[in-house]
Amino acid sequence: MLEIKGIAASAGVAIASAFRLEHPDYTVHQENVADSDSELKRLDDALAKSQQELEAIKQRTEEQLGAKKAEIFESHLLILNDPELLDAVRDKITSEKVTAQYALDEVAKQFISMFENMKSAYLRERAADMRDVTKRVLTHLLGLNYINPADISEEVIVIAEDLTPSDTAQLNRQYVKGFTTNIGGRTSHSAIMARSLEIPAVVGTQEVMAQIQIGDTVIVDGLDGKVIVNPSAEVLEQYQLKRDQYLRQIEEWKKLKEVPTQSKDGVHVELGANIGTPNDVTGVLENGGEAVGLYRTEFLYMGRSELPSEDVQFNAYKTVLERMEGKPVVVRTLDIGGDKELPYLDLPKEMNPFLGFRAVRLCLERQDIFRTQLRALLRASVYGNLRIMFPMIATLDEFRQAKALLLDEKQKLTSEGVQVSDSIQLGIMVEIPSTAVLADQFAKEVDFFSIGTNDLIQYTMAADRMNERVSYLYQPYNPAILRLVKMVIDAAHQEGRWVGMCGEMAGDATAIPLLLGLGLDEFSMSATSILPARSQISRLSKAEMEQLAAKAMGMQTAQQVVELVRSIDE
Amino acid sequence: MLEIKGIAASAGVAIASAFRLEHPDYTVHQENVADSDSELKRLDDALAKSQQELEAIKQRTEEQLGAKKAEIFESHLLILNDPELLDAVRDKITSEKVTAQYALDEVAKQFISMFENMKSAYLRERAADMRDVTKRVLTHLLGLNYINPADISEEVIVIAEDLTPSDTAQLNRQYVKGFTTNIGGRTSHSAIMARSLEIPAVVGTQEVMAQIQIGDTVIVDGLDGKVIVNPSAEVLEQYQLKRDQYLRQIEEWKKLKEVPTQSKDGVHVELGANIGTPNDVTGVLENGGEAVGLYRTEFLYMGRSELPSEDVQFNAYKTVLERMEGKPVVVRTLDIGGDKELPYLDLPKEMNPFLGFRAVRLCLERQDIFRTQLRALLRASVYGNLRIMFPMIATLDEFRQAKALLLDEKQKLTSEGVQVSDSIQLGIMVEIPSTAVLADQFAKEVDFFSIGTNDLIQYTMAADRMNERVSYLYQPYNPAILRLVKMVIDAAHQEGRWVGMCGEMAGDATAIPLLLGLGLDEFSMSATSILPARSQISRLSKAEMEQLAAKAMGMQTAQQVVELVRSIDE
Repeated sequence: MLEIKGIAASAGVAIASAFRLEHPDYTVHQENVADSDSELKRLDDALAKSQQELEAIKQRTEEQLGAKKAEIFESHLLILNDPELLDAVRDKITSEKVTAQYALDEVAKQFISMFENMKSAYLRERAADMRDVTKRVLTHLLGLNYINPADISEEVIVIAEDLTPSDTAQLNRQYVKGFTTNIGGRTSHSAIMARSLEIPAVVGTQEVMAQIQIGDTVIVDGLDGKVIVNPSAEVLEQYQLKRDQYLRQIEEWKKLKEVPTQSKDGVHVELGANIGTPNDVTGVLENGGEAVGLYRTEFLYMGRSELPSEDVQFNAYKTVLERMEGKPVVVRTLDIGGDKELPYLDLPKEMNPFLGFRAVRLCLERQDIFRTQLRALLRASVYGNLRIMFPMIATLDEFRQAKALLLDEKQKLTSEGVQVSDSIQLGIMVEIPSTAVLADQFAKEVDFFSIGTNDLIQYTMAADRMNERVSYLYQPYNPAILRLVKMVIDAAHQEGRWVGMCGEMAGDATAIPLLLGLGLDEFSMSATSILPARSQISRLSKAEMEQLAAKAMGMQTAQQVVELVRSIDE
Repeated sequence: MLEIKGIAASAGVAIASAFRLEHPDYTVHQENVADSDSELKRLDDALAKSQQELEAIKQRTEEQLGAKKAEIFESHLLILNDPELLDAVRDKITSEKVTAQYALDEVAKQFISMFENMKSAYLRERAADMRDVTKRVLTHLLGLNYINPADISEEVIVIAEDLTPSDTAQLNRQYVKGFTTNIGGRTSHSAIMARSLEIPAVVGTQEVMAQIQIGDTVIVDGLDGKVIVNPSAEVLEQYQLKRDQYLRQIEEWKKLKEVPTQSKDGVHVELGANIGTPNDVTGVLENGGEAVGLYRTEFLYMGRSELPSEDVQFNAYKTVLERMEGKPVVVRTLDIGGDKELPYLDLPKEMNPFLGFRAVRLCLERQDIFRTQLRALLRASVYGNLRIMFPMIATLDEFRQAKALLLDEKQKLTSEGVQVSDSIQLGIMVEIPSTAVLADQFAKEVDFFSIGTNDLIQYTMAADRMNERVSYLYQPYNPAILRLVKMVIDAAHQEGRWVGMCGEMAGDATAIPLLLGLGLDEFSMSATSILPARSQISRLSKAEMEQLAAKAMGMQTAQQVVELVRSIDE
């Protein structure tokens, strides 16, 4: 028996025998051939087979996971048919008299290296896509024996170095009970897909490929981030129990779908969901969300070649508002810049994009973009309960300027005879330390705050959470963070405002007792976290959590706070 | 009469006629020549003349400004004699039968573009040096008529697009009364040189080159950042008065050199200086500094090909401690990483270096580097009044780890029979918001705090101050910053610790009344700011400033705070 630690990427416990998903050796050597025509023919055959496969995967993904998740295969198909790429490969085959595989490999390498050296994260991602597509075509050209994950037909745990998007999308939930990989983190593509598929997963283990053989019995504990290989009978039984408990718990949670969120001592708090597209509302409703606490509008601006029109935006906002049927919908205005680039905006490269020209800073300068979004929001406001919030507000001046633009567009619309709601709440994200420290002044002018912990923690600790070398400083439980959250909540309540939180911390089981005790009014999280959170809160007394939070704020380190919270859980 | 606004780069008022420093047209066209030998000869002549010029400039700079400031011309001489560069130029002359100027221009362009594309700020700077050197040689090769700034022999105000390091170093203080440029900022090279030379300067005007002709009468007001062209008699008289007042003020300040710093109501605060090298101690003593409030040890690590040895460091620290004769010397341990790179450390590129692996974060991982520095400091401690502080501390854990390493090295030295002082104070920089918010906990374990406002403001406002598009958010007077400073000071005093400040804010005349009121114990600034600060503090009542600071902390915007402080100045 062997226990391997990793990152819990998707909840649940899975037990089955190991299936090693290994990519074959794609190494290609230079080889000259006299007959270029037959190489061109081989290339076309391989492309055709790849095309068929991709279309099948795309369709299956659409059926299992929806159109959004299938988009990546549309990109793969575009690459597969990219005339620039194919012309270069064909040209190389005929002019250099080389094999189709060598020509493809060489040309693709150039494209990949070009993409990889680009500053834009969007274009760098295209390098990964191109690598994925090239491998697929090479599999056919090299006649490699690669077991397609879609062909798995018995219950297994998939063991892999990493899973490509195509790998993950081909996993059949019926047979693939869980998976575990050597690399990846909680936010890597495979982890996100695992949560959507509701398959338990542990990633970033570094050693499952070295330690696990085909047929080994494997337990994937996606709750605690552990992988156990060939467990003893005792341990096996213990984990079967844990798996069944978790499944029962899921059933229990489902019963809470229509129940309002309430603490043990009867205090109501609101549980909302973070969404990115109108399609995500389905998940919010299925999981009993009481609100959309954060609608990230960036997706409307991504994956297209120009800014979305006012009508495109209006329709998206209207859809979300209507589908939420009068429940609150907090829309965050465009938060682009930083690590989120839009190729068509042609923003300057920055040395420290996280401390740069982004979000409301950009919107106040590019008023054309901002006003279009505000008009679309105002027009949609009559279809539901709209709340608007501005991201990355650092000073009161910025809030006042943004508000003035909103009021200006509102007046224009009214004078054009367009109906606009009169009860739109107007708030800000609190994600910059200055705004947290000055919350008492902001509270006099805003309707609500939503604390964005992902950025607030990053700035407060001066540590880029994407940077592995300093990620140890990304400390949600640092007493300094708790104190800032408390400052914001107290300042808001003093002026009769409500405070939400829409960072990852809001859905974290360790943070929830503290946040309840600090007086948070609204928690916004992934839709799938809502029912577990509702269940957890129903077992907590707010009065007791207030004492817990006060104690935590007086502590010295994040570790001490975590230990304190864990002590009450038992 | 015309008034042009710009950035006040060096204090004082200068009045004289305009001298336009224009760089000639260095455009070189391809031209073939049969006789390569004569081109090689022309190249050698131009190189020899440039060599003579550079040696003369270097010597004059050493005399006027000291060896440190002359180092840049040593770099220029190295480029001028770089065999790789010269071989390539000579090769091009003979192999392509082109003129010496064309060959030089082409080869230099390649080198420059190579340097410019490098990530390292150090190597990018070499591009500017190479451009400067190339122009110098081209002036001779093209027989251009370029008036050397060193040849100016009547009193003038120099008007220029920008000043290169060689331009600035050639300015003769006797004749050049002031200068003004179209581009540049307070921290650009020309601005720093102007302050060293004590020549009034206004930079970044954008239009002096377009608006000022040779012989125009020009006033450079380096106090308020204004340039006045052809003033009326009345205005001229007014500025003559302002100039004389400033000169008298300097005389007044000089009288304060030996006087302890004291507020009008008799409260003593300590005025220290920020230094980078042992040579800078001269300026500290000449300006009546009561301490070295910040010794930036990075310079010891820069401009060399490997880490400085323990002895190299020991000698530097010992020199500073001895020359300060028992006055406190606060040494900051290595603050490298972020924008400050060391080529020989080969640190990974980071997406957000300001939020990255730097300073104490790096030192705790690279303990070999850190321990060497700590040993050198401990050995030097017996030669004066040493205080050690760690930069970029975000959590108590980091402080405890760094302290443990120090104590470990101390014990080792003691057991080796090396004498180490027992009264070394141990403190931290407060430049990360989490540390300011948790200062009460830190105060139980450190001997002192030094607030690093440059970074603290940057992180608190989430704005890279080097990024022009968001530099409007670099707000020292934002009430949130004042509140954080107050939190730190109160927490320290509660535990009987002292608090200094070593960011730019500490020497800022608008900030000083607020900082005095907030209870700051030690102000550390550029040596040249000490006497004006001492004079200013002697006219301020601490009790009154406490009321002012309390009022400022209750305000909503930085602008309101500035207006409040200005209202008491009158």
